[in-house]
Amino acid sequence: MATGSNLSFVLNRPNDVEFKEKPVPSLKSAHEVLVAINYTGICGSDVHYWVHGAIGHFVVKDPMVLGHESAGTVVQVGEAVKTLKVGDRVALEPGYPCRHCEACLGGHYNLCPDMAFAATPPYDGTLTGYWAAPADFCYKLPESVSLQEGALIEPLAVGVHIVRQAGVSPGQSVVVMGAGPVGLLCAAVARAFGASKVVQVDIVQNKLDFALGFAATHAYLSQRVSPEENARNIIALADLGAGADVVIDASGAEPSIQASLHAVRVGGTYVQGGMGKSDITFPIMALCIKEVTAKGSFRYGSGDYKLAIDLVANKKVDVKKLVDGVVPFSQAEDAFRKVKEGQVIKILIAGPNEKDVVGSVDTSVDEEKVAAVEEATKEGGAACC
Amino acid sequence: MATGSNLSFVLNRPNDVEFKEKPVPSLKSAHEVLVAINYTGICGSDVHYWVHGAIGHFVVKDPMVLGHESAGTVVQVGEAVKTLKVGDRVALEPGYPCRHCEACLGGHYNLCPDMAFAATPPYDGTLTGYWAAPADFCYKLPESVSLQEGALIEPLAVGVHIVRQAGVSPGQSVVVMGAGPVGLLCAAVARAFGASKVVQVDIVQNKLDFALGFAATHAYLSQRVSPEENARNIIALADLGAGADVVIDASGAEPSIQASLHAVRVGGTYVQGGMGKSDITFPIMALCIKEVTAKGSFRYGSGDYKLAIDLVANKKVDVKKLVDGVVPFSQAEDAFRKVKEGQVIKILIAGPNEKDVVGSVDTSVDEEKVAAVEEATKEGGAACC
Amino acid sequence: MATGSNLSFVLNRPNDVEFKEKPVPSLKSAHEVLVAINYTGICGSDVHYWVHGAIGHFVVKDPMVLGHESAGTVVQVGEAVKTLKVGDRVALEPGYPCRHCEACLGGHYNLCPDMAFAATPPYDGTLTGYWAAPADFCYKLPESVSLQEGALIEPLAVGVHIVRQAGVSPGQSVVVMGAGPVGLLCAAVARAFGASKVVQVDIVQNKLDFALGFAATHAYLSQRVSPEENARNIIALADLGAGADVVIDASGAEPSIQASLHAVRVGGTYVQGGMGKSDITFPIMALCIKEVTAKGSFRYGSGDYKLAIDLVANKKVDVKKLVDGVVPFSQAEDAFRKVKEGQVIKILIAGPNEKDVVGSVDTSVDEEKVAAVEEATKEGGAACC
Amino acid sequence: MATGSNLSFVLNRPNDVEFKEKPVPSLKSAHEVLVAINYTGICGSDVHYWVHGAIGHFVVKDPMVLGHESAGTVVQVGEAVKTLKVGDRVALEPGYPCRHCEACLGGHYNLCPDMAFAATPPYDGTLTGYWAAPADFCYKLPESVSLQEGALIEPLAVGVHIVRQAGVSPGQSVVVMGAGPVGLLCAAVARAFGASKVVQVDIVQNKLDFALGFAATHAYLSQRVSPEENARNIIALADLGAGADVVIDASGAEPSIQASLHAVRVGGTYVQGGMGKSDITFPIMALCIKEVTAKGSFRYGSGDYKLAIDLVANKKVDVKKLVDGVVPFSQAEDAFRKVKEGQVIKILIAGPNEKDVVGSVDTSVDEEKVAAVEEATKEGGAACC
Repeated sequence: MATGSNLSFVLNRPNDVEFKEKPVPSLKSAHEVLVAINYTGICGSDVHYWVHGAIGHFVVKDPMVLGHESAGTVVQVGEAVKTLKVGDRVALEPGYPCRHCEACLGGHYNLCPDMAFAATPPYDGTLTGYWAAPADFCYKLPESVSLQEGALIEPLAVGVHIVRQAGVSPGQSVVVMGAGPVGLLCAAVARAFGASKVVQVDIVQNKLDFALGFAATHAYLSQRVSPEENARNIIALADLGAGADVVIDASGAEPSIQASLHAVRVGGTYVQGGMGKSDITFPIMALCIKEVTAKGSFRYGSGDYKLAIDLVANKKVDVKKLVDGVVPFSQAEDAFRKVKEGQVIKILIAGPNEKDVVGSVDTSVDEEKVAAVEEATKEGGAACC
Repeated sequence: MATGSNLSFVLNRPNDVEFKEKPVPSLKSAHEVLVAINYTGICGSDVHYWVHGAIGHFVVKDPMVLGHESAGTVVQVGEAVKTLKVGDRVALEPGYPCRHCEACLGGHYNLCPDMAFAATPPYDGTLTGYWAAPADFCYKLPESVSLQEGALIEPLAVGVHIVRQAGVSPGQSVVVMGAGPVGLLCAAVARAFGASKVVQVDIVQNKLDFALGFAATHAYLSQRVSPEENARNIIALADLGAGADVVIDASGAEPSIQASLHAVRVGGTYVQGGMGKSDITFPIMALCIKEVTAKGSFRYGSGDYKLAIDLVANKKVDVKKLVDGVVPFSQAEDAFRKVKEGQVIKILIAGPNEKDVVGSVDTSVDEEKVAAVEEATKEGGAACC
Repeated sequence: MATGSNLSFVLNRPNDVEFKEKPVPSLKSAHEVLVAINYTGICGSDVHYWVHGAIGHFVVKDPMVLGHESAGTVVQVGEAVKTLKVGDRVALEPGYPCRHCEACLGGHYNLCPDMAFAATPPYDGTLTGYWAAPADFCYKLPESVSLQEGALIEPLAVGVHIVRQAGVSPGQSVVVMGAGPVGLLCAAVARAFGASKVVQVDIVQNKLDFALGFAATHAYLSQRVSPEENARNIIALADLGAGADVVIDASGAEPSIQASLHAVRVGGTYVQGGMGKSDITFPIMALCIKEVTAKGSFRYGSGDYKLAIDLVANKKVDVKKLVDGVVPFSQAEDAFRKVKEGQVIKILIAGPNEKDVVGSVDTSVDEEKVAAVEEATKEGGAACC
Repeated sequence: MATGSNLSFVLNRPNDVEFKEKPVPSLKSAHEVLVAINYTGICGSDVHYWVHGAIGHFVVKDPMVLGHESAGTVVQVGEAVKTLKVGDRVALEPGYPCRHCEACLGGHYNLCPDMAFAATPPYDGTLTGYWAAPADFCYKLPESVSLQEGALIEPLAVGVHIVRQAGVSPGQSVVVMGAGPVGLLCAAVARAFGASKVVQVDIVQNKLDFALGFAATHAYLSQRVSPEENARNIIALADLGAGADVVIDASGAEPSIQASLHAVRVGGTYVQGGMGKSDITFPIMALCIKEVTAKGSFRYGSGDYKLAIDLVANKKVDVKKLVDGVVPFSQAEDAFRKVKEGQVIKILIAGPNEKDVVGSVDTSVDEEKVAAVEEATKEGGAACC
């Protein structure tokens, strides 16, 4: 049972957060479980709400608890739950679909129009003490996966969904635009899917250096040249012949998307995973004449969490490498600041009931990185994903 | 054997054509047949070469025979040919792939980089007396299909390929942007694939009137409003709920492509079939967030001709309705002019050895149509496909 | 609200049925509606339970209401229901999945291990006065579809699912083994999906005569020869070249299944839709060497009911032709007898609250048909689907 | 140019082979190359022709050169060849399709009815000095892949094709029936495709011991119990829940195929890769009710060789482990005998012009293995694939 604090990290309005004790949630159905939150990662969207109070038409009107990348421990199970028991450690899938619409019944619940998604207005998030959720959206972690790794299953599932949308298969060549957390994870998942070559592309050399040590086989520092020329350079660098089998944009940046269409081969696949400007200049005839298959990718769906956990359990993706540090719940705002400033890849915030967590982020500020991120941000999303 | 004239309709340079007697081609391999051309349709690309001398990087440098939408009669067969005999009436597939590259061996010969395509520089076209081609690219017409219908198999195969790329299935709703020949044929093929609703969209009311009598269940006259608003209007008109299952752009026009992405439903499919500007402003986040599958469509490939003939033979598509008239070979230039001016949908030119063909095009000039086509052309492709 | 009788047609044990007044069901959740049953068709499985008290490991231990092919009228709606209102006429999908397992979340709810299916022990069926069901499994009938047609949506959905499993596409040739209700509907759906040739196969000439007037383009009376020879005959009859693109077995009979594998072309698809013996002699090397894709088909799933209604509404499938008659509820047992004896294709039983229904089955006993059905039944399923 | 011997290993009639000097082949087209054979593996089908003189309806009527698993060195290139040059080391794909039929144009050339396949009557095989072949069926080996590994690309491509037919994807569980060369390679390819669990099944413990050291994560010694019980044991052993995502039969043995259908999960996939009896007792209702997708797999097709080479070059599959030894050309018959007796997994025969090859097979006869193989062979194919 829930016996600790339900302290929550609440966004009141842009740049105005507070810690607030809220009532412990009760189970809304016999299919739910109550989970004590152990660790929560910070996503770019959390930071965006914190700074701007809105993403697109999702506007924070009332105070909202932030956070949606969490792992925790089951403390209570509903009567109908057979798959979990008290004490099980779980990764939390933070969006709950209606289960009744065509999208849900058709196996595409991520496209449910009535989705209730954590930390997306008007729904509260998981930077809190206890979280109630349907048991089938709480995934038991095997012994070999830690709770801190469990908090990274959410962004890994984003990468899994993107790579599945791309249909990456063994022996293929893959270009990933962007080396933020999602871009890095896309590269790692593409390798796990058997890609022979994975070219990571970014505008920050430090991030590419990290990418090469993480999953990429090649790295390309994007130049201030035409998208055609950047594409030619990428193809030449990795000896991709007539182009890449698959190009994934995990940057949302206009020049990257343009280069994506020029880098992909005739008959290849391009997936748009990164968020950015609504409308951009786009090489539509390249798509037409090369018979490119282009797909969007939105969050994650059926089977994505299960596979993400499997990839971590089987040492195919080492998500721990992305974690720069773990801080106590009380330092949540400072952690948000570090993410905003681009000083870290991924930082975890311990739950309010988690003891013995001492702030341990590597705070050696990397001036080059911060400067590049600031510049990129001005251009509209180049460095975020 | 070839005993008649091999008079050919040759483009020397933009707006400069002539009739020239050329040597009858001989078979280049035991797998080829020689075909006497009976009828040839005029495609927008033929007109474009005639007027501009180039399409993209395909530039007419040396005199080139025009035409690639043809049907004819077999007059000679190579030794290895088992599927055809002298006297067979055939529809000609006018592009010949290398058969050795990855695209060819993988079943996507339309993407072959070494394709030799009729009336695409430097290859001559089919407005000539005799044509030599591999037997497997000459499709025997069943008795129920006439040679004039046979000349329309080529544009119908373009529509078949587009609709297959779109994966149209029974019960679906389909929006087709553009009501030129290809747009009309896409609508008809979509109906043959079982689409319950097919909304044809154009900027010329006359063309929509024709479309409703041909295959469309609904017609929408595109307005000078935002693409979002045109999309909303289309959805409301045909009661498409959250959007169309499939949107096909057969116009190449920027506003149509933009509206396509707004008219397609979450999880739906959009296919770019029409040619137009290389780069346009494109609602990329609509593609991303709605997880739209976008595909290009380029010419036609494996099985498309066979199905196109089957659709005509089984009365699923009535291609004859598109034919405004048939003219003798000697009136080829005049026929080109009529197509250029938008006075006709499709006009057939008889082969130089075809007797008893009297020019019979309905020449009642439709002033509204001509004016709208001229305006659309200025804007860059809106009315052509 | 429910104000009439809830008289139900209950199977106590094999060949022992009774009419019993049962309490009107109440809504179990805010997502449910209550439906007054108007018409119910009889399925082979209903008859099988009536005669044998079991199908495979599903054994009727306690009295069970029969029936699962029903249409009705909404009389009460739960609070969360937005898609239906009192008075709406609906086709009932009679199986309710758990919505929480991998199959459900993955879009394959027909494979849910916790499915509660009407008239499958221990769940009661729809030969009753009122039926409570989730609103998303009650499909509103458009004005152009009658309630009697609505009762045939269930078997049509079986055919839709089979044809979708088979992936039938325009221009293909399809062989359907068996000319019972499901076989006939498979043929009709295959035509609606654009199949150019549909060969219906059965051992009863009368049924084939009906099939040719319903949807088939060819009919073959199965001979007492080897499956290879029957397959060759089918191929010759319909000029299928190297074999059929698709073969559907809707008979469950061993000789039909064997012939299916010989009749399908290299690279073709065979779907097993009919139920029969657990283990049979099977030409496994034909499957291997021809790279046949074989699929099972079980009930119906996402989108099947919607499409089935669309096919009826758009006059693609004329289900009324299958109905031999409609009888009052009081004549339910007699109706079961007629179906068992093979005297009818499909018979509808009016709901207990349906007025003015006079028994009107065409009872001209067809001796040839009855004899053939009896013989077939002895052989194990040949005539049933 | 070809300057050495063209000594060939010719099968005259069952169990009657001889070494015969034949003329060096000349190039039949400008697209061909001439290859000096370096190494050739022995396949079960080679042995079968040697012993029985026929496989199914393929009967050796005239003397035929054996062998089709070869790698060699290019010694001459046709004029149209751009992808290869003299000195290139290549793996030979030994079947040449017509390039003109529907199967070929549709991307399924392995299903070409006019395939000319090495060492399949009436076509000679590759146990010879020089081999002429189309350049696109000769795959250049990267530096990191040896010529001996190159001779194993053929059986690896068989495994690649099977696993592709099965659509194995990351995180899946796969059961492979049979631990002969193809079964072992299927297991390795399945791992390379990301399968989390691969259960190898055989009736010979030694082969399972090898399998665990090669690619399998679990091994099951098939028992003389019902197929249902063997399936339950396999599921329990590897904790497969409701069954395996994918089951591959690489044995051709009736009991294995039966167990395959019981071991696969609801909605799973089963692929028949192994050859055996034409007709077997088959659990057809398991396929139907579980909606299993069953596929045959025949040889290899578009992209399979390329991926096989990539898997070896990238150290995903270590084919060298399968090689028990390499013998000079003069010891070919003895090598066939060793394969027939089941003493080895794979043995390579050097080309007749290959110098300095000393017979080096590990000839320690494994009595248990030989006995089990003999017994299995009696039963009809259990141990061969």
